[in-house]
Amino acid sequence: MKKFINHVDDFLTESLAGFAQAHADIITVNHRPLFVKRLANPSFTKVRLISGGGSGHEPLHIGFVGYGMLDAACPGQVFTSPTPDQILTAAQILENESGVLFIVKNYAGDVMNFEIAAEMLACQYETVLVNDDISLPKTHSIGRRGVAGTLIVEKMLGAAAEQGADLKTCKTLGDKIVSGTATMGVALSSCTVPALGKPTFTLAADACEMGVGIHGEQGRETLKLKTATEIVSVLVDNIVSELNPPPNQPVLLHINGFGATPLIELYLVYNIAADLLQQHGVIISRSLVGNYTTSLDMAGCSVTVSLLDEQLIALWDAPVHTANLRWGC
Amino acid sequence: MKKFINHVDDFLTESLAGFAQAHADIITVNHRPLFVKRLANPSFTKVRLISGGGSGHEPLHIGFVGYGMLDAACPGQVFTSPTPDQILTAAQILENESGVLFIVKNYAGDVMNFEIAAEMLACQYETVLVNDDISLPKTHSIGRRGVAGTLIVEKMLGAAAEQGADLKTCKTLGDKIVSGTATMGVALSSCTVPALGKPTFTLAADACEMGVGIHGEQGRETLKLKTATEIVSVLVDNIVSELNPPPNQPVLLHINGFGATPLIELYLVYNIAADLLQQHGVIISRSLVGNYTTSLDMAGCSVTVSLLDEQLIALWDAPVHTANLRWGC
Repeated sequence: MKKFINHVDDFLTESLAGFAQAHADIITVNHRPLFVKRLANPSFTKVRLISGGGSGHEPLHIGFVGYGMLDAACPGQVFTSPTPDQILTAAQILENESGVLFIVKNYAGDVMNFEIAAEMLACQYETVLVNDDISLPKTHSIGRRGVAGTLIVEKMLGAAAEQGADLKTCKTLGDKIVSGTATMGVALSSCTVPALGKPTFTLAADACEMGVGIHGEQGRETLKLKTATEIVSVLVDNIVSELNPPPNQPVLLHINGFGATPLIELYLVYNIAADLLQQHGVIISRSLVGNYTTSLDMAGCSVTVSLLDEQLIALWDAPVHTANLRWGC
Repeated sequence: MKKFINHVDDFLTESLAGFAQAHADIITVNHRPLFVKRLANPSFTKVRLISGGGSGHEPLHIGFVGYGMLDAACPGQVFTSPTPDQILTAAQILENESGVLFIVKNYAGDVMNFEIAAEMLACQYETVLVNDDISLPKTHSIGRRGVAGTLIVEKMLGAAAEQGADLKTCKTLGDKIVSGTATMGVALSSCTVPALGKPTFTLAADACEMGVGIHGEQGRETLKLKTATEIVSVLVDNIVSELNPPPNQPVLLHINGFGATPLIELYLVYNIAADLLQQHGVIISRSLVGNYTTSLDMAGCSVTVSLLDEQLIALWDAPVHTANLRWGC
């Protein structure tokens, strides 16, 4: 296993210690139980936004804690759900009369642990469940996974909450964003979970995994490696079939790297996806290209399309100041 | 070769087309000859900042074109110097009475081609040569290489030029930043240049290359893979020996990923480097962690330390609005 690591047991702790030192102007890390909290207290009346999930997807979620986005993020061990006490303690420190909104990626463990924590809260709360990964059929027993679209939900709801939207409004808005967001990914290599010490899955030298999840879950099919245009066409066609956007529909196009794919390739993927979407008649109003929802050291990327309207564009453009997403301030 | 690619000959062109589409609000791409130009014209009297070099290091340099940083960047083919006509045309479009400042990484081809272009310019110009890679001895025949410290030079000079500093001031300031900046890197894997189609070098499964360059150039030595702390200690010790900072010296600590190393590992490296530097008595005033000066899909990272003073801190903090570095606006 070739990683910058001292000991498997300390991997997350040491990384979070570095994150805390590097961004001491934005966040603080609470160690027992573990969560990352926005440093500056938001206005008392603001709805609190809390997310979390297994680590190994950085900058998601810890890198998005700060002004205009999350109030706290609860990181589990690598690819492991945060425990209810992490979520509950973070929520109890933050709770107020406006309530807490949980943003949860749709994985059984995450859903269960956020529910357990939420039910112990004294304040009102709502949960927005993100399930943007269209690789699985809608009828799949565990439902669709939450992947790179989560960032978009967190950014837009973060802006809405900062502007004073109440809990019900945030919940309704979140559900609307999720229903208009679709993602599909492809892996060129597996990731290696430190505790396992070897690749999660194997891919032949000439193969790619279409519809892979952000933990290296098996996708729809393993294909012989094709040209970038052929690969991206499959992703975009599936997304367009799912969202079925009307002509001149404005969208946000997000190309997300899984951690080991360099920017020069991600922009090449963006170019193909943008051209294809424009051929379908949609208008690319906003873009985000980079490694945002990663899968440790997996090579590959996902394409996310999110339907926009004037309100959502304004929320996307609103100022944000977090460790790993920042503009307007 | 597992990459998102259609054809080797179109790799750079297609990636730049994606970059141009994704960031049409910030830059334009001139195709013949090839350079990336800031979209909004800066004030007529501002010193023009132009950089460039081989592609494959993105976001360096193209991602740093925009307000508060570069006015243009000239991308060569992957790991290949830009040609004099790229540099000359970019400079001629931008030149004004205040002059042009070239920021050049110290590689023979880059230095030569920037010189050829500069000598054909009608306006006054200066060149800041970046050679922050301390892996090579000072006496090495080709001199030290320019690596991740280049971003720091570009950011600070960009702010100074935006604030109205004249050409001589920018040149003096640039030389000062370079002399106070030291970088050393380590590779865990080779990169694969598309035109070659196979790894540039081989590393045993239990080996790392200390002092590697950003093109996969051989480093000081190939070591058996050690703990992160042992690896980072070597990098930091060499940097401290080079810079010899006095107690309480404020510094910028930049942990740069080479393209295939995820953020969770880079923050772990940051944690070790920050602790070691603080033990040496320096004060880490500013930090930057992420994949900024990459080497295609190489796994590994570099540690950069740059000496700060009040002026340099203000320049670092000044607003910047480029495709891949943005704050304050």
